[in-house]
Amino acid sequence: MSKYSFLDDYSEGCHPNILQALVDTNMSQQTAYGNDDYCRQAKDLIREHLCTDDTPIYFIAGGTLANLIIIASALRAHESVIAVSSGHIELRETGAIEATGHKIITVPPVDGKLTVEAVESALTSNSHFPHMTRPRMVYISNATETGTVYTKAELQALSAVCRSNNLLLLLDGARLASALTADINDLTLQDIAALTDIFWVGGTKVGALLGEAVVIPNPQLAIDFDFHIKQRGALLAKGRVLGLQFLELFKNDLLFELARSANESAQKLAKAATDNGFQLAATTESNQIFLILPNSLIEHLQERFEFYIWEKVDDKSSVIRLVTSWATDESQVQLFIEAMAAANEAA
Amino acid sequence: MSKYSFLDDYSEGCHPNILQALVDTNMSQQTAYGNDDYCRQAKDLIREHLCTDDTPIYFIAGGTLANLIIIASALRAHESVIAVSSGHIELRETGAIEATGHKIITVPPVDGKLTVEAVESALTSNSHFPHMTRPRMVYISNATETGTVYTKAELQALSAVCRSNNLLLLLDGARLASALTADINDLTLQDIAALTDIFWVGGTKVGALLGEAVVIPNPQLAIDFDFHIKQRGALLAKGRVLGLQFLELFKNDLLFELARSANESAQKLAKAATDNGFQLAATTESNQIFLILPNSLIEHLQERFEFYIWEKVDDKSSVIRLVTSWATDESQVQLFIEAMAAANEAA
Amino acid sequence: MSKYSFLDDYSEGCHPNILQALVDTNMSQQTAYGNDDYCRQAKDLIREHLCTDDTPIYFIAGGTLANLIIIASALRAHESVIAVSSGHIELRETGAIEATGHKIITVPPVDGKLTVEAVESALTSNSHFPHMTRPRMVYISNATETGTVYTKAELQALSAVCRSNNLLLLLDGARLASALTADINDLTLQDIAALTDIFWVGGTKVGALLGEAVVIPNPQLAIDFDFHIKQRGALLAKGRVLGLQFLELFKNDLLFELARSANESAQKLAKAATDNGFQLAATTESNQIFLILPNSLIEHLQERFEFYIWEKVDDKSSVIRLVTSWATDESQVQLFIEAMAAANEAA
Amino acid sequence: MSKYSFLDDYSEGCHPNILQALVDTNMSQQTAYGNDDYCRQAKDLIREHLCTDDTPIYFIAGGTLANLIIIASALRAHESVIAVSSGHIELRETGAIEATGHKIITVPPVDGKLTVEAVESALTSNSHFPHMTRPRMVYISNATETGTVYTKAELQALSAVCRSNNLLLLLDGARLASALTADINDLTLQDIAALTDIFWVGGTKVGALLGEAVVIPNPQLAIDFDFHIKQRGALLAKGRVLGLQFLELFKNDLLFELARSANESAQKLAKAATDNGFQLAATTESNQIFLILPNSLIEHLQERFEFYIWEKVDDKSSVIRLVTSWATDESQVQLFIEAMAAANEAA
Repeated sequence: MSKYSFLDDYSEGCHPNILQALVDTNMSQQTAYGNDDYCRQAKDLIREHLCTDDTPIYFIAGGTLANLIIIASALRAHESVIAVSSGHIELRETGAIEATGHKIITVPPVDGKLTVEAVESALTSNSHFPHMTRPRMVYISNATETGTVYTKAELQALSAVCRSNNLLLLLDGARLASALTADINDLTLQDIAALTDIFWVGGTKVGALLGEAVVIPNPQLAIDFDFHIKQRGALLAKGRVLGLQFLELFKNDLLFELARSANESAQKLAKAATDNGFQLAATTESNQIFLILPNSLIEHLQERFEFYIWEKVDDKSSVIRLVTSWATDESQVQLFIEAMAAANEAA
Repeated sequence: MSKYSFLDDYSEGCHPNILQALVDTNMSQQTAYGNDDYCRQAKDLIREHLCTDDTPIYFIAGGTLANLIIIASALRAHESVIAVSSGHIELRETGAIEATGHKIITVPPVDGKLTVEAVESALTSNSHFPHMTRPRMVYISNATETGTVYTKAELQALSAVCRSNNLLLLLDGARLASALTADINDLTLQDIAALTDIFWVGGTKVGALLGEAVVIPNPQLAIDFDFHIKQRGALLAKGRVLGLQFLELFKNDLLFELARSANESAQKLAKAATDNGFQLAATTESNQIFLILPNSLIEHLQERFEFYIWEKVDDKSSVIRLVTSWATDESQVQLFIEAMAAANEAA
Repeated sequence: MSKYSFLDDYSEGCHPNILQALVDTNMSQQTAYGNDDYCRQAKDLIREHLCTDDTPIYFIAGGTLANLIIIASALRAHESVIAVSSGHIELRETGAIEATGHKIITVPPVDGKLTVEAVESALTSNSHFPHMTRPRMVYISNATETGTVYTKAELQALSAVCRSNNLLLLLDGARLASALTADINDLTLQDIAALTDIFWVGGTKVGALLGEAVVIPNPQLAIDFDFHIKQRGALLAKGRVLGLQFLELFKNDLLFELARSANESAQKLAKAATDNGFQLAATTESNQIFLILPNSLIEHLQERFEFYIWEKVDDKSSVIRLVTSWATDESQVQLFIEAMAAANEAA
Repeated sequence: MSKYSFLDDYSEGCHPNILQALVDTNMSQQTAYGNDDYCRQAKDLIREHLCTDDTPIYFIAGGTLANLIIIASALRAHESVIAVSSGHIELRETGAIEATGHKIITVPPVDGKLTVEAVESALTSNSHFPHMTRPRMVYISNATETGTVYTKAELQALSAVCRSNNLLLLLDGARLASALTADINDLTLQDIAALTDIFWVGGTKVGALLGEAVVIPNPQLAIDFDFHIKQRGALLAKGRVLGLQFLELFKNDLLFELARSANESAQKLAKAATDNGFQLAATTESNQIFLILPNSLIEHLQERFEFYIWEKVDDKSSVIRLVTSWATDESQVQLFIEAMAAANEAA
């Protein structure tokens, strides 16, 4: 019997609605390169959430690709991006941003998040012009790389510091659906469009086979954006594959429903952990859970489950990371909880 | 009633076998980033064609992405690529190669193909070192951008001139299945692996939703290749989507069967054209047909069909391009042929 | 006895006035990075020629460096440059422009020059957006790489086609002094500032040790230009070395006097050639002479002179290139002329 | 009366020997692009210090240009450089390295220096391949950006950790002459060639008008290095200007004599400061002095001298930086010392 994986939120294929739509539309002839009916309809559905008719939207096959296209399109060669040192573009993209010629200026995160103070400090320490790059963009992720979620007040403050310092604000939304359905969230997609210059809504981690939707509220950043999609190799011949998925995900807000379900599984696991006397290494705000467990229990759990051992706490315990998703099997969550409870009783 | 399109070979979704495989495997949990069972199995199937156990193979979501990753990975900053002026990397990739820092040296094609003489001429006229880049790679497409196909003798000669001049040979196989099933073809996948340093087999144009398989016979070029896939944003979280499609395409040589079918449709159209007294603007070798038709007939055909008007011949006639595919509806081919026949009779 | 060289216009050191200025100012303490008194004074002198008070001017140590900084600063990643196929950026800069990420679109030259028709043709054949780069800049050299010179009418026409097509016009003036003192010239520095967006006046080939002055009439292109100078490694700590040289070159128009002298030497050589019955392979407009000479005479001349054999004409004769300069020794010119006369008499 | 500047070591022109050599050789015709007699002779002189006949050496007009050429030439696109966060390539080159596509991995300095532990830590935290770049080069400066100097033991240890981890070692020698003549130095040029893969000896800060000599002990890194010099715009037509200066600087070890003199001036200032009861903010090891002075004294000194106020210590005192050089006027050093003594007596 193989193990059940809580390793990530992209271990399965896609939501059944998407599969069905692929089947239903398969032999329809469509214009290539994203000029098909499904892309058009998906964009309209997304724009309903933004309460606009014409915000430019593009679909791109992956997050690193989206980030590098956005940054390469938006910045002149001497301009740089401010990000937290735990940011995806800094830590997990193999120098993709630098490969387009741009420096990333890193600052320490607070709870995984970028703060106004950190932006101001980056501006101060990067002002010896022209011997330093000109900071021109701020990059944040929501949810963050450690699963925390920005509040409206936090995003408003970041947006304000950006606007008063001529900085563009980019929001990486690989797990945006998860953030927007978190218990502590008070932001809407419309807020995000109002407060950022460009952002993207991830599909891959919330039930799509692949695909992210780049939304460009700042019209200046939309100029010739499609050239950059093509130049970086991201213009799919069958763009319909991306459009169709976002059409399904935004139909009846399926995307948010799936994210909410993932968050609820995370809350169950987090609550069960504390109920059984185990500590959380970080507050569970979206679909990532960081638990401190005894090593003996970890070894026991590893017989039936896959998950990351995040870091050592002391000789007897470690932090593990669990990720829940749209596809999480609730019976497996239950088994995991029972194993924690049994361990607690035995102790 | 909407028109039937002969515009390209990527207007439909995917072959039903692929759809079925997506359905069948959907909820299976798989390791991310191309380390899944389907990628592994697909690579093994492809290697059977190469008669090797270990040739490195990677799946990438598009042709421009494949080309830019290969070139950026293989070349040092001062090295350049020789290609025909009609080559895809020169004409249809929005400067993707230059965006990675590399110059393309162009030479005139002969029947869409690169010749040994052209390679030698490029070497001669790019030898004023160090004031010129060092030519280090040769890029060809098979089938070419105009649908012609390399013979074994031609590829052997190109391979030889490359090897004797320390040039790497890259073959862009966006339509390789179509080339290898052309009537005049005498090459096998194994030949191609023996004669090139790196090549890719396109999936998008022969029934996949997306995906190209990069094969690296030259082990030097495989070193750290995966870093470049990630750096250019092409490492899909759900790499299974690519692996699964190639698994289906190479099962029972479906890929070649589909390409052969497309070629046969092309031959039917070409033969019917000449049978009815119309000229071909180029020999039909794979799945592209270039016909010279009277403008009046073209206008008539446009009422029911979509296709590109390639270029003007004279005041009364033009070249049109038709592309057939795995999905081509034979009844529509028949209707097109009947329209030509009717026009012929009327004339 | 060593041979006298007509190989190029940068075989000697610098004009004595520059040497003297280096000696005179040597121990003066000056602010670094181009913020010294000499740079300031040199810019003011140049601006007098432009009849402006504030046109931005920067000094850069070489021509390739100037070209790559200008292009990298001015263009977005998807934008490209139109140039003749014989252009310096295409043929003699080791892919420097591509190394900054930009494609060069080449068109055939007419007498070494770019024509309006060629620009229009490049625009037409590069309009399949977004699959092609967006042409955004036009690059010309005056004098051209083959020594020809643009007339005012020609430059006005190029300027007009650029402005009506949203193209920036860059003029590479490595030999601009030579062009502006050519017999057929009817342009002034002020004209050039009015008709281009950015241009540079070469110092290296007209008596400086090194240095080119970049002039930016289009204020949009001056924004943050200094960052690009630094980013590409061209911000000299002792910027005074460049400023001082341009100060001397522009004092009493020394630069133009030197260029005129070089042109006169060229005219003498050209006239003597035709007087003695030899043909010119191109009209001598500036300081390059392309002569067709019998191979026997060439061999004889090679005993005392160095020059390039440009190309074979037939079995008995070849084109040679002579370059004159500010430093050309008139007695050597005389000896060369005498050798031609003697050969003519002997024939 | 203008102020005397201790701002930097590049405020004056060049050493008189260099001026004289420029005068003496001015009208000699020389081959262009660094193939002149002076470059050849200068390389031979440098090689005497290395006790080799053939180590490749190239002259480049500036430090940032040298660093970016070296890194762009040595690394594949996915490879990165480890440096201290105070390193010149990280802090003072306007993203020049990133503009060539490469990431810099920063670690905290210890006394301005890179430690073995920091290298090992960078390797550990950059090992999540292929989602991270591959660290392939280590960058250090000697003297460091804060004037400290590596001992032989320290450089040996760094060299060893590099070699055992397949890392190339690059030493930025903008102030190498100053380091090698420091009191605590126990390294020779030959040691540096043995322990690094590539390094450069700065000329600009030790009496040249401009110029740095890149030495390449690792033959692998010399392959096609000249193409990169040209591609990045650093191939001076009159390469003689660089060669001649290094010829003079290495004749009778003038370079080291000048650096020693600068160091001695620094020691005088440092000793006088402590003799008069003022504290040093850092040990004075080469030609930079970091003094803590009362703000009132600083204001007084500013009437006659220019220097940087480095940072605030408390409400009453600040750190100032003084830089001495080959050109430092000893009478001005004396005046500065007297001002400190007077302030001490008055206190």
